[in-house]
Amino acid sequence: MTPFSAPVEDILFSLRDVAGAARVPDWDADLTGEIIAQFARFAEDIIAPLDESGDAQGCRLDAGRVVMPDGFKEAYGQLAEGGWQGLTLPEDHGGMALDPLTAAAVSEVFSGACHSLQMICNLVPGAAATLRRFGSPDQQGEWLPKLASGAVLSTMCLTEAGAGSDLSRIRTRATRDGENWALTGDKIFISGGDQNLSDDILHLVLARTGTPGDGIKGLSLFLTSKSGAGEAISITRIEEKLGLHASPTCQIAFDDAPAELLGHEGAGLAAMFTMMNHARIDVALQGVAHASRAHHIAQSYATTRQQGRKPDGRDAMLADHADVARMLADQESLSLGARAMAHIALVEMALGARPALVDFLTPVCKVFCTEAGIRAADLGIQILGGYGYLTEYRIAQTWRDARITAIYEGANGIHAAAIATRGLKGEGGDHFAALIGELTDNPRVLALLARWNDARTTLTKSATPTAHAHDFMALTSTLFYRAVWCKIAAADPARAPLRDHVLNAPLPIGDAAFT
Amino acid sequence: MTPFSAPVEDILFSLRDVAGAARVPDWDADLTGEIIAQFARFAEDIIAPLDESGDAQGCRLDAGRVVMPDGFKEAYGQLAEGGWQGLTLPEDHGGMALDPLTAAAVSEVFSGACHSLQMICNLVPGAAATLRRFGSPDQQGEWLPKLASGAVLSTMCLTEAGAGSDLSRIRTRATRDGENWALTGDKIFISGGDQNLSDDILHLVLARTGTPGDGIKGLSLFLTSKSGAGEAISITRIEEKLGLHASPTCQIAFDDAPAELLGHEGAGLAAMFTMMNHARIDVALQGVAHASRAHHIAQSYATTRQQGRKPDGRDAMLADHADVARMLADQESLSLGARAMAHIALVEMALGARPALVDFLTPVCKVFCTEAGIRAADLGIQILGGYGYLTEYRIAQTWRDARITAIYEGANGIHAAAIATRGLKGEGGDHFAALIGELTDNPRVLALLARWNDARTTLTKSATPTAHAHDFMALTSTLFYRAVWCKIAAADPARAPLRDHVLNAPLPIGDAAFT
Repeated sequence: MTPFSAPVEDILFSLRDVAGAARVPDWDADLTGEIIAQFARFAEDIIAPLDESGDAQGCRLDAGRVVMPDGFKEAYGQLAEGGWQGLTLPEDHGGMALDPLTAAAVSEVFSGACHSLQMICNLVPGAAATLRRFGSPDQQGEWLPKLASGAVLSTMCLTEAGAGSDLSRIRTRATRDGENWALTGDKIFISGGDQNLSDDILHLVLARTGTPGDGIKGLSLFLTSKSGAGEAISITRIEEKLGLHASPTCQIAFDDAPAELLGHEGAGLAAMFTMMNHARIDVALQGVAHASRAHHIAQSYATTRQQGRKPDGRDAMLADHADVARMLADQESLSLGARAMAHIALVEMALGARPALVDFLTPVCKVFCTEAGIRAADLGIQILGGYGYLTEYRIAQTWRDARITAIYEGANGIHAAAIATRGLKGEGGDHFAALIGELTDNPRVLALLARWNDARTTLTKSATPTAHAHDFMALTSTLFYRAVWCKIAAADPARAPLRDHVLNAPLPIGDAAFT
Repeated sequence: MTPFSAPVEDILFSLRDVAGAARVPDWDADLTGEIIAQFARFAEDIIAPLDESGDAQGCRLDAGRVVMPDGFKEAYGQLAEGGWQGLTLPEDHGGMALDPLTAAAVSEVFSGACHSLQMICNLVPGAAATLRRFGSPDQQGEWLPKLASGAVLSTMCLTEAGAGSDLSRIRTRATRDGENWALTGDKIFISGGDQNLSDDILHLVLARTGTPGDGIKGLSLFLTSKSGAGEAISITRIEEKLGLHASPTCQIAFDDAPAELLGHEGAGLAAMFTMMNHARIDVALQGVAHASRAHHIAQSYATTRQQGRKPDGRDAMLADHADVARMLADQESLSLGARAMAHIALVEMALGARPALVDFLTPVCKVFCTEAGIRAADLGIQILGGYGYLTEYRIAQTWRDARITAIYEGANGIHAAAIATRGLKGEGGDHFAALIGELTDNPRVLALLARWNDARTTLTKSATPTAHAHDFMALTSTLFYRAVWCKIAAADPARAPLRDHVLNAPLPIGDAAFT
């Protein structure tokens, strides 16, 4: 009922005034503004209208090939035609070489318009980064231009039945014959594993070159393609899911599929993390997009739906009721706060001065932003009441589509465990504490920072830090969120009431945490 | 994947050892145990298998009549044949005259097996109670035996477009011609508004006999039926929903439909609350059923799915990981705690000594138990990870079906406002404080009770108590939940670790609440 409207001004405010993107040497606020505005029009007019019909129609498997919902192929054609697939790729390979902040803004808008299509298209930047870092000049020369033009879309083939969060159990085998490799095994949960949008599909496949006893050290990354492998790659199933019906989640069988090694033998996991780090911050932005969209739907509804009366007897709008106002404020603060958190991580990434901080912030953003999207959508359902439960108002779809983000690209519990263990080993924690101080000198936030420092000390001394991982992630992300909200309100004093709303919210950890 | 298994022992433990059902004069633990076990077999064998196919197939509107999914008519036939529709109805009208605690246990099992079918069938006890309280002997004699035998199912026709939470806006008109009345208007969101299960459908309709200016005082309750009204009642639409696909949510048009007044003119709202009070505690039990089912699915999965390794190098199960164990504990404590809360309210209702306490507990249970069901289902999705997002494992359906419970029978925010205003006017609050003391002398709970008493004082003095309603409901329900968990652990010391898990959880209110 509420058409998608890209939050262009909010995104620019967040990048410029909260995350301080101007500190990034090659960032140009005006250029970013123009690009986002241009993409916003395309997203609103061409992409967003497919989101509902794509959800209803879904993908289907027809004679071993995935057929996308009506209109997706045409929309993808326009997307590729507009050069959007090459946004961050190098100019000498046909890309636009735009900065990652602009790309992030475009990606958020894309996710808000149609998460299903976005997630298929937006595996490309990660694949391109992996090719640029690990690929040979030949591999780069062959694939980067096709990825930039949109002729090729890519996949990440990691998960197997029995090897999801635990990649050491991967059984897909790569066997060598001279310079040639061949892959045999079954991968599951492969997003965009097949589709009829692009001419060809580039698969990046994690496979075992060593023995099972080698665990993750025996894994290498391979490159194969739909056109190159022909019948040796087959789609054996697409999954029936809670949401993202227009995103084909495929089971792929590799049967002696010809492949090339990408990077070094045994270094598959390192190469994979190049893809996944991009993907993780992109997933955080999917969460932001859902939070923003959910707030927009609910705000539009609640400010135009008459319900009950005000104390003075005049007709009230739904939004005038205290409980609805509370839920709208929750949605708005989650949406703006989560976006600013992701943008701050992206700016740190672009600045490059504190890589350990980026490693620390990435899982925090992945967890907080995805949960923000889900929570905001859930609040939206509640605000709309009976209408929220209907398909018609589409807030239920926002929740269904958002729900996967807390699961894929590393379930949120895995990220929590990561910052409670590896995350506290290097200087990431010190940088994080410094970042909080850079964002605000609010005494309530600094008191929380002191509590966080105590928790950090407890965890570094603990023999079982993962037992505290959930609480530590909750404390860390809440601290970051509150500091960010102080920064937002400092940049725009009109938002001070929302900052107070955030500071007064319950802490998501119990008094006995970390003891 | 995990077949439905009725939690018979947990229910009996909760009634007998936590809620003290033996205090109710006509309660017989052995009889209740036999009845639940008997219904459990029927629910597991006949009803539960329809839950998945019903969700996939859904209801459809065919030539103005609702067609239920395959198998529902036959299952309903067996249900009626078994006498289950007359469980609580008087024996002289063909019922079994069983006590409400047994009925509640049966209802929870029914909801766990198939919420969609349960909610159509379980409008009958509320309709029967309304007939017994407000109906004439003729009305009772005509309808109660048909409700008891299952020949007739009933509906509550309250909501209209523009009149959901705000019933003063109801526009359906009842006009009088001598002793005869006729109804004209459109009702929406009518559960089971039509179906092909029962021979006839009894509609209880809230309509306006006064002028619009009379607000809720101009509303009266009417009785009409599918057979009696014929073409004057038509189904104009069934809604497409997030869940409960096998429960037809109908839009009904009444066009001069012959009707009888039920009770007094202008007393429609009072009569309606008789139906709704039953419905509200039944909705709380739907939440309990979903929480229990979600925990069962997740527990079964997590204890049989191998993932990673234990510290000693042996293979670990998913449930061995700290974060998963935390989520399973959350689910289990929500499930058992919510059930005990509802049972305590039902026992109070049956004892009849503290009606104000029942009025206070009913909305608290409605809110807490429904949110427990939704939360436990959400945790279940997260525990199953990628598999939780698939249709196949059915935990996603649990969430989709559970989600409505926080919305219907009064959105949860409405119930929060009710206890923060009307709820604190009588002696309900004093009784509630006394109840907490009866449940436990745990010092942490008593400290929370002191905080609750302070909050109550603040609210009773506040000119805008609804501004605190959400926090007050959160505090009230958490206090009740924690006290109940102390009682559970006292009844079964093996559950003490879960009690501590509950007591150590974060409080859902901020430090600055009620200021």
